[in-house]
Amino acid sequence: FRQGFPEVIFGAGKTAEQILHIFKHLVYKGNTVLATRVDANSAEEVCRQVEGAVYDSSGRTLLYKPEGYELKTEKKIGVICAGTSDIPVAREAEVTIEAMGHRYVSFYDIGVAGIHRLFAQIEEIRKCDVLIVVAGMEGALPSVVGGLVSAPVIAVPTSIGYGAHLNGITSLLSMLNTCASGVTVVNIDNGFGAGYSASLMLRV
Amino acid sequence: FRQGFPEVIFGAGKTAEQILHIFKHLVYKGNTVLATRVDANSAEEVCRQVEGAVYDSSGRTLLYKPEGYELKTEKKIGVICAGTSDIPVAREAEVTIEAMGHRYVSFYDIGVAGIHRLFAQIEEIRKCDVLIVVAGMEGALPSVVGGLVSAPVIAVPTSIGYGAHLNGITSLLSMLNTCASGVTVVNIDNGFGAGYSASLMLRV
Amino acid sequence: FRQGFPEVIFGAGKTAEQILHIFKHLVYKGNTVLATRVDANSAEEVCRQVEGAVYDSSGRTLLYKPEGYELKTEKKIGVICAGTSDIPVAREAEVTIEAMGHRYVSFYDIGVAGIHRLFAQIEEIRKCDVLIVVAGMEGALPSVVGGLVSAPVIAVPTSIGYGAHLNGITSLLSMLNTCASGVTVVNIDNGFGAGYSASLMLRV
Amino acid sequence: FRQGFPEVIFGAGKTAEQILHIFKHLVYKGNTVLATRVDANSAEEVCRQVEGAVYDSSGRTLLYKPEGYELKTEKKIGVICAGTSDIPVAREAEVTIEAMGHRYVSFYDIGVAGIHRLFAQIEEIRKCDVLIVVAGMEGALPSVVGGLVSAPVIAVPTSIGYGAHLNGITSLLSMLNTCASGVTVVNIDNGFGAGYSASLMLRV
Amino acid sequence: FRQGFPEVIFGAGKTAEQILHIFKHLVYKGNTVLATRVDANSAEEVCRQVEGAVYDSSGRTLLYKPEGYELKTEKKIGVICAGTSDIPVAREAEVTIEAMGHRYVSFYDIGVAGIHRLFAQIEEIRKCDVLIVVAGMEGALPSVVGGLVSAPVIAVPTSIGYGAHLNGITSLLSMLNTCASGVTVVNIDNGFGAGYSASLMLRV
Amino acid sequence: FRQGFPEVIFGAGKTAEQILHIFKHLVYKGNTVLATRVDANSAEEVCRQVEGAVYDSSGRTLLYKPEGYELKTEKKIGVICAGTSDIPVAREAEVTIEAMGHRYVSFYDIGVAGIHRLFAQIEEIRKCDVLIVVAGMEGALPSVVGGLVSAPVIAVPTSIGYGAHLNGITSLLSMLNTCASGVTVVNIDNGFGAGYSASLMLRV
Amino acid sequence: FRQGFPEVIFGAGKTAEQILHIFKHLVYKGNTVLATRVDANSAEEVCRQVEGAVYDSSGRTLLYKPEGYELKTEKKIGVICAGTSDIPVAREAEVTIEAMGHRYVSFYDIGVAGIHRLFAQIEEIRKCDVLIVVAGMEGALPSVVGGLVSAPVIAVPTSIGYGAHLNGITSLLSMLNTCASGVTVVNIDNGFGAGYSASLMLRV
Amino acid sequence: FRQGFPEVIFGAGKTAEQILHIFKHLVYKGNTVLATRVDANSAEEVCRQVEGAVYDSSGRTLLYKPEGYELKTEKKIGVICAGTSDIPVAREAEVTIEAMGHRYVSFYDIGVAGIHRLFAQIEEIRKCDVLIVVAGMEGALPSVVGGLVSAPVIAVPTSIGYGAHLNGITSLLSMLNTCASGVTVVNIDNGFGAGYSASLMLRV
Ligand SMILES: Nc1ncnc2c1ncn2[C@@H]1O[C@H](COP(=O)(O)O)[C@@H](O)[C@H]1O
Ligand SMILES: Nc1ncnc2c1ncn2[C@@H]1O[C@H](COP(=O)(O)O)[C@@H](O)[C@H]1O
Ligand SMILES: Nc1ncnc2c1ncn2[C@@H]1O[C@H](COP(=O)(O)O)[C@@H](O)[C@H]1O
Ligand SMILES: Nc1ncnc2c1ncn2[C@@H]1O[C@H](COP(=O)(O)O)[C@@H](O)[C@H]1O
Ligand SMILES: [Mg+2]
Ligand SMILES: [Mg+2]
Ligand SMILES: [Mg+2]
Ligand SMILES: [Mg+2]
Ligand SMILES: [Mg+2]
Ligand SMILES: [Mg+2]
Ligand SMILES: [Mg+2]
Ligand SMILES: [Mg+2]
Repeated sequence: FRQGFPEVIFGAGKTAEQILHIFKHLVYKGNTVLATRVDANSAEEVCRQVEGAVYDSSGRTLLYKPEGYELKTEKKIGVICAGTSDIPVAREAEVTIEAMGHRYVSFYDIGVAGIHRLFAQIEEIRKCDVLIVVAGMEGALPSVVGGLVSAPVIAVPTSIGYGAHLNGITSLLSMLNTCASGVTVVNIDNGFGAGYSASLMLRV
Repeated sequence: FRQGFPEVIFGAGKTAEQILHIFKHLVYKGNTVLATRVDANSAEEVCRQVEGAVYDSSGRTLLYKPEGYELKTEKKIGVICAGTSDIPVAREAEVTIEAMGHRYVSFYDIGVAGIHRLFAQIEEIRKCDVLIVVAGMEGALPSVVGGLVSAPVIAVPTSIGYGAHLNGITSLLSMLNTCASGVTVVNIDNGFGAGYSASLMLRV
Repeated sequence: FRQGFPEVIFGAGKTAEQILHIFKHLVYKGNTVLATRVDANSAEEVCRQVEGAVYDSSGRTLLYKPEGYELKTEKKIGVICAGTSDIPVAREAEVTIEAMGHRYVSFYDIGVAGIHRLFAQIEEIRKCDVLIVVAGMEGALPSVVGGLVSAPVIAVPTSIGYGAHLNGITSLLSMLNTCASGVTVVNIDNGFGAGYSASLMLRV
Repeated sequence: FRQGFPEVIFGAGKTAEQILHIFKHLVYKGNTVLATRVDANSAEEVCRQVEGAVYDSSGRTLLYKPEGYELKTEKKIGVICAGTSDIPVAREAEVTIEAMGHRYVSFYDIGVAGIHRLFAQIEEIRKCDVLIVVAGMEGALPSVVGGLVSAPVIAVPTSIGYGAHLNGITSLLSMLNTCASGVTVVNIDNGFGAGYSASLMLRV
Repeated sequence: FRQGFPEVIFGAGKTAEQILHIFKHLVYKGNTVLATRVDANSAEEVCRQVEGAVYDSSGRTLLYKPEGYELKTEKKIGVICAGTSDIPVAREAEVTIEAMGHRYVSFYDIGVAGIHRLFAQIEEIRKCDVLIVVAGMEGALPSVVGGLVSAPVIAVPTSIGYGAHLNGITSLLSMLNTCASGVTVVNIDNGFGAGYSASLMLRV
Repeated sequence: FRQGFPEVIFGAGKTAEQILHIFKHLVYKGNTVLATRVDANSAEEVCRQVEGAVYDSSGRTLLYKPEGYELKTEKKIGVICAGTSDIPVAREAEVTIEAMGHRYVSFYDIGVAGIHRLFAQIEEIRKCDVLIVVAGMEGALPSVVGGLVSAPVIAVPTSIGYGAHLNGITSLLSMLNTCASGVTVVNIDNGFGAGYSASLMLRV
Repeated sequence: FRQGFPEVIFGAGKTAEQILHIFKHLVYKGNTVLATRVDANSAEEVCRQVEGAVYDSSGRTLLYKPEGYELKTEKKIGVICAGTSDIPVAREAEVTIEAMGHRYVSFYDIGVAGIHRLFAQIEEIRKCDVLIVVAGMEGALPSVVGGLVSAPVIAVPTSIGYGAHLNGITSLLSMLNTCASGVTVVNIDNGFGAGYSASLMLRV
Repeated sequence: FRQGFPEVIFGAGKTAEQILHIFKHLVYKGNTVLATRVDANSAEEVCRQVEGAVYDSSGRTLLYKPEGYELKTEKKIGVICAGTSDIPVAREAEVTIEAMGHRYVSFYDIGVAGIHRLFAQIEEIRKCDVLIVVAGMEGALPSVVGGLVSAPVIAVPTSIGYGAHLNGITSLLSMLNTCASGVTVVNIDNGFGAGYSASLMLRV
């Protein structure tokens, strides 16, 4: 049942050589290939040797789309992001969605303390079929969004914060205790997991 | 946009009188009504006064389906459950699914330490469009299931365990760190949230 | 410098006899007397013996206002409350404000997942000089309110929730990490502390 | 309602280029501009290019006051600080107060283990309209100060300590459990939040 | 080397029968006998059957002093107590000191938020050879006392508090991070351990 | 009773000089010598000076087997490893087993999310007399393995993961709460402890 | 491979009826049957209806040994227990060993603070093939025992303690960090797991 | 009452210039001067400029004893240390004792897993008037020592360990839960606090 899924490499803790080796091997097999948590040096190495590999320096992802890559559906995933520091996690989600063969729309810089920015975009947000909401600090955004839409919401806590933020644990706990219905949660900074799950939901 | 959604009462911390009052009021408005975390006494009171209200003593839910209630789709949600002690949480999810107008299939007593029971049912499980996996203890079941299916998986940790189980925190942490792709998580014992989100996914 | 302050009894862990004894003694001295965390039995005893003592069964406070009690200022404190289960904490704050000789306005049932209810009242909320925001679950309300007003906001986390709510620790952490400016925090369920601090702010 | 408020940049995680870019842009709009958590290199860059920008190397803040800047009131905020290692957090608070258009008085090196130093200054401290108390270690100072004054007290825990100090969590917990009335708390090391809230209180 | 030490029974989790049996047996051997954590029922049973056994209902201790019991030294231990709810722990310490054959002086209701009460007694406190300081809430008292005396201070955190007090963990952490020198700490509510250690210090 | 046991050096926090000094001294005494947690530089130094010392750069162990070294039994220990990032911990266990004079078989890259890889090897795994199962992330592998074998299983959590993995605490908690019988646990990343205990079990 | 293993029922959370029903059913199949965590009432019910079922009120176990039950080996397991409050956990281990068809020897009341009691028995302890060490409080006993024997040691933390004992987490953490080699750990109060694993080790 | 006490500088977070400046100033006043947590560079600077200043590179202390320094009593403090990695903390305690004008005896490398080493020295240990016991890992040594002596014991947890050691929290919790009487505890790695308190005890 692996048909229709990209090959994915988790780059954290792997050397440039290891990533290059696996990446090349998978590209050779003809599939879409995604590598996450790739530092700039390793990425440069891969991009030099694999034509078509694209590095996103914000999300730290490497993506290779084979010939014949095309979107699987008209449906789309909204990716909402609280602060500019949360953007890398949003980007990891977005490139994952792309690797899965799906479409996304970005809504950045939508914090709960400036809620008019959310309302300015709510009509576009409601057009999305699934929503990913990325937030650090108090992690309140998924609750507010969840109350305004009827699509499923995937909340992604980030490690952005300090002191009692506990490296993201606070955002995570907050999201798990949301008073909005229809919100599920992934691990801290796990943009990949959110993008992957959102893509599966488009296929239900 | 509340069309097609049940009215929901969170019964925890409410008196029998309060639950009865709200329940009656909502039934009167003609909608499907669901109450969760309802103790047996309150339930008895409601069932005596509201014809058609049904109490599930395992999941501790009260459900009232109005005339004309019907399933919204042919799709179905699989509810997998590790141990017998996890069944109440699974039941809360299932009745929620019913309240949302969807269909579920139960797979109970599927623990990771007796994995043949999972394999015995894997074909039926793979036919489900969304999966809810309920587990206490080490919370490993969603990882194993997630690796065997391509539908989205919602993991529900339960408070079943003792000692270093920390009232469910261990299962929760375990699920958030799953090595399977396509798994999202809700709060400990939150069968309602899982059933609600799964239902939204059927509508994507 | 204790002029203009009520006498306060912390009732938790005190017997009915102890509370009665201290309460009577302080009333006798002619001051406003406030007792918090008083159970119904103790309250009944005090009310029977002390004319003018008023028990609030929701906030579990006993208040005695001496002859000549009057409001100290025209300014007022808004008390905003997320869910009905948070009302007891809001009530503890409100009665404390009253004991301090100040005025409050209540805004109940203003959850972040139904944010239109907040907007329906925002003009009245903005007329308040100080705001107390009481919330359990994900504790997101103070962030949203803080972004909409320029008065100081005191956030009160409550122990309302379950599972990963950790008896209020989640709401507390969330509030400490608010991305809104102008928000300070008190201990879980500490309505008294919020009401007291808000009153001091009116006197700045 | 943003009238009378500075523009604020949170410098943590931003590059010198990003800070410079935003800072210049906001100065151009004619407002007071404050940047916090700015490292020396970024600050140097900004100061070279923006005339009138002042860097505080202890508090790591950049402040630009436009022509016509003046204090908004005669009231003043006392900033009390337990140990010399807590001074950077106190400085962040003080520069924020200045950015808000208010006045502060510093009381440094006032530890609870040498309480005569507190008493030596208590008369001056009592003249302040609002107090900010910054402390690491056991975080006891706000309790002692709170018991001696009737102004509102904002407690700021710091990350100064080791071992069971847990990077400031101990000071934070301690302050949240103060037995003094009239104390509210902000996040660990959040001098900005304390200065901002204290300034709002002056305007009540 | 057990000469000069009482026999001690830890009553928690023992039945009245068990306590009675051991108590009688030890009294019979002619030694001083101390039992801690004894509930009223068990105590009544022991007192009925063992002449000379004395129950302290606050500290929940049973003490039997054999004929010939006398104080071992002129030195004395000061037991300082923050709030009235902390008195039971102070009492456990005091009866332990008595069982060890030493003398104590009590200083109750000395909270940090009303520090004048401490100063009113400081001369008497300074006459003590060792000090035990019992406190719940923010646990700040040992720091203040430690800064005012040159005797060794034993800090005893109590479980008195709520919310972020975490059943005493906050007081404990606070005391371990004291900025006063000469303070050591025992477990939460461990009046016995404090009294025992203080007594050993008198014998150094 | 130290007969039949290697001399072991815990290299963490020791300088190259210290390790070399102790290593040489123990080799001189004629015993098998094992050093764990040795960085490459220290290892190079030892290997240059001690003939026969072998460095494993993955497990970061140094092993010296004296003349006459031989296996103590035909029995063998299976070392199962979830992800490639867990291999260093598995290697520490394996070299420890070798130092103890025992035999091991490696089963690498056996994750729960790809459970067919476990089944492909289950027959070989069942031939082992004791099993060591190394896993990070959700730590589910020991539960699955434990349910499939009747040999004792030693679970080794690793620090591999991020966010809510808490540096291995999640894997550890998960393993302690296994629903499989016959599983015991060692500290995070403690390959040495697992290898040592497994070897003792072979000698029972 | 279930040959030679008892059937086990985990009684916690099961009603008397449920336990009785399963117990009877398993006895009927002719196997050894063990139920753990059985309260006195349920046990009485089972014992009345199942001839040969034996209840251990300390360990709260029910054991039924079928005709033909016999010990599988001459080897034996030592069960060492720190305090009398730890005995119930030791008993759960011992009855489990018996259910597995093995032999145990008890060494009770062997605390680290009275280490001569350990030395008085060390010769007998060294004759055991596997050791189970049960301890609450600081959980130090397995380290001391582990240093004196060369058999594998299984450490069982118990929930016996108060305050900073954290319901057994302290003992658990302590045991996981033992400086003795050859010690593995099971969950808090998990006498069953220890007895089961120890029995498997006898069969290696 | 500061007569007979050294001046103490806490070097952590201070620059070489700051340490030098304060150190010189205090030496000039003619007192004993102690600085703790001093890195090698700062120390070199001080030693070059202050004749008589002595740096201990293990304990990272700087000590200056003025002319006329002499021991205050014949009594002595035993400093017991579990592993070689704990020695720096022991050294901090010892130099503090020296600064206080007291005498110490060192007992190093006394681990609980090799308890014969403790017994080999127990007679000398019993001659000490106060004991400091320094230990990382499971922190069991103070319990064992406490059971063998009748002098007061100060337990110092260290941050030596890994994984579930939690940077010393495990050792700390373990020591707070000791089953030995007469043990008090200081913060993790706080050799200074232990040495200071032990010295005060000699003066009781
Ligand atoms: N609900 C409350 N939460 C926290 N502190 C309180 C509360 N109610 C009263 N207090 C404080 O408790 C003090 C009285 O304590 P007590 O003397 O024990 O009755 C008052 O002066 C208040 O500062
Ligand atoms: N030191 C600080 N701690 C917490 N929040 C801050 C701090 N400094 C600035 N902020 C907040 O950060 C916002 C700006 O964030 P940004 O847009 O990321 O620069 C400001 O409006 C403040 O509310
Ligand atoms: N005290 C115990 N602690 C942990 N697991 C246990 C205990 N007693 C029995 N078990 C496990 O629980 C299983 C039976 O669970 P159940 O089917 O719920 O009765 C047995 O196979 C054992 O693996
Ligand atoms: N290693 C240490 N750990 C804890 N407190 C210390 C330590 N060294 C010195 N101190 C305390 O720090 C105080 C001096 O702090 P400072 O004025 O910041 O140098 C001394 O009076 C001691 O009470
Ligand atoms: Mg929604
Ligand atoms: Mg899957
Ligand atoms: Mg605001
Ligand atoms: Mg005050
Ligand atoms: Mg002192
Ligand atoms: Mg097995
Ligand atoms: Mg051993
Ligand atoms: Mg002793």
